Amino acid sequence: MNFFQRQIKLKPYPRGFHLITDEVLRAFPEIKQINMGQLQVFIKHTSASLTLNENADYTVRTDFESHFNKMVPENAPYYRHTYEGPDDMPAHIKASLLGASVEIPVSDGKLNLGIWQGIYLCEHRDFGGSRNLVITVFGV
Amino acid sequence: MNFFQRQIKLKPYPRGFHLITDEVLRAFPEIKQINMGQLQVFIKHTSASLTLNENADYTVRTDFESHFNKMVPENAPYYRHTYEGPDDMPAHIKASLLGASVEIPVSDGKLNLGIWQGIYLCEHRDFGGSRNLVITVFGV
Amino acid sequence: MNFFQRQIKLKPYPRGFHLITDEVLRAFPEIKQINMGQLQVFIKHTSASLTLNENADYTVRTDFESHFNKMVPENAPYYRHTYEGPDDMPAHIKASLLGASVEIPVSDGKLNLGIWQGIYLCEHRDFGGSRNLVITVFGV
Repeated sequence: MNFFQRQIKLKPYPRGFHLITDEVLRAFPEIKQINMGQLQVFIKHTSASLTLNENADYTVRTDFESHFNKMVPENAPYYRHTYEGPDDMPAHIKASLLGASVEIPVSDGKLNLGIWQGIYLCEHRDFGGSRNLVITVFGV
Repeated sequence: MNFFQRQIKLKPYPRGFHLITDEVLRAFPEIKQINMGQLQVFIKHTSASLTLNENADYTVRTDFESHFNKMVPENAPYYRHTYEGPDDMPAHIKASLLGASVEIPVSDGKLNLGIWQGIYLCEHRDFGGSRNLVITVFGV
Repeated sequence: MNFFQRQIKLKPYPRGFHLITDEVLRAFPEIKQINMGQLQVFIKHTSASLTLNENADYTVRTDFESHFNKMVPENAPYYRHTYEGPDDMPAHIKASLLGASVEIPVSDGKLNLGIWQGIYLCEHRDFGGSRNLVITVFGV
């Protein structure tokens, strides 16, 4: 059984959805030692999130931003948590809808993703700054 | 520590929400060897997803389909990723709202699900075809 | 490799979003023995769920309740699963949007959460009663 864990800080990303698969893999060369296992990427924040989705056409990512802004609008009349700005409360809700982590099987030293799957950083704040991730890999 | 991993291909399902608990369990008799552990079911696609929900009344699953079609409609005027058909972009968004994997505790050689919980395949495309799953079980 | 698993029953919570981080940690002193690992909290129900979000201002949690009630309304005309009351079908949908489990890295004997992150019990029923959790911790 091998167990690896490391914390990394992403560069700041603008509000929106961003592919970070390569950044995650570069941070974790030890994955090559895992024949059969699982990798978790966890984000230590409540207004940004992680998901898996299409890694090819960038309009998928801009359509995500459009749709989440419609489904979880700014300035809804029922928000009471408003003092950190209009982008704050929607960011919390979007973060929980998408989730703080992704868990991906590892097979033969590689992420066993589908051919079209990539890891998205979902930045829900206008100026979210650098986000901290904890990456954990384990297996045999 | 035991570690098992296997890829399976589901039969094609029509658009909608479908119970696949039995199909997953049939593919993994080794779960009986795990006294205390965890099972992950992971889907290698970006327009279908997995979730846990009620395993009894089938109208729960048809109501899921109705509600997701309303919450993430086809032909929204702001979609730009439209060339794969009107069911494509909503499928990507629904997939991320529900997620690409479920992680379930294993106790005494069985999935430790609640009495009403089952595993749903959420097929968001009109003609999604056969979907590939990676199932990973580990524990002691 | 250490592996611990335990089932706990929460006290009944009213409909809404509730911080349960301390309750989870009190149930699991063994986490101190894990230098590097992962904790899963899993809920054995289909009308309540778990998520991670802000642990400070309680209006974040009341805004969650307001927004989810808007995004997944009661008495939608297309619901057919209605015989358990108007809060039932929305509860199932909310549960799948948020998910039945959270997976959190463990580092140096502690949950490696961000400073603002806490574990929410999301109680979607008017009278959900006591909810059962399975907590699994493993690592080295």
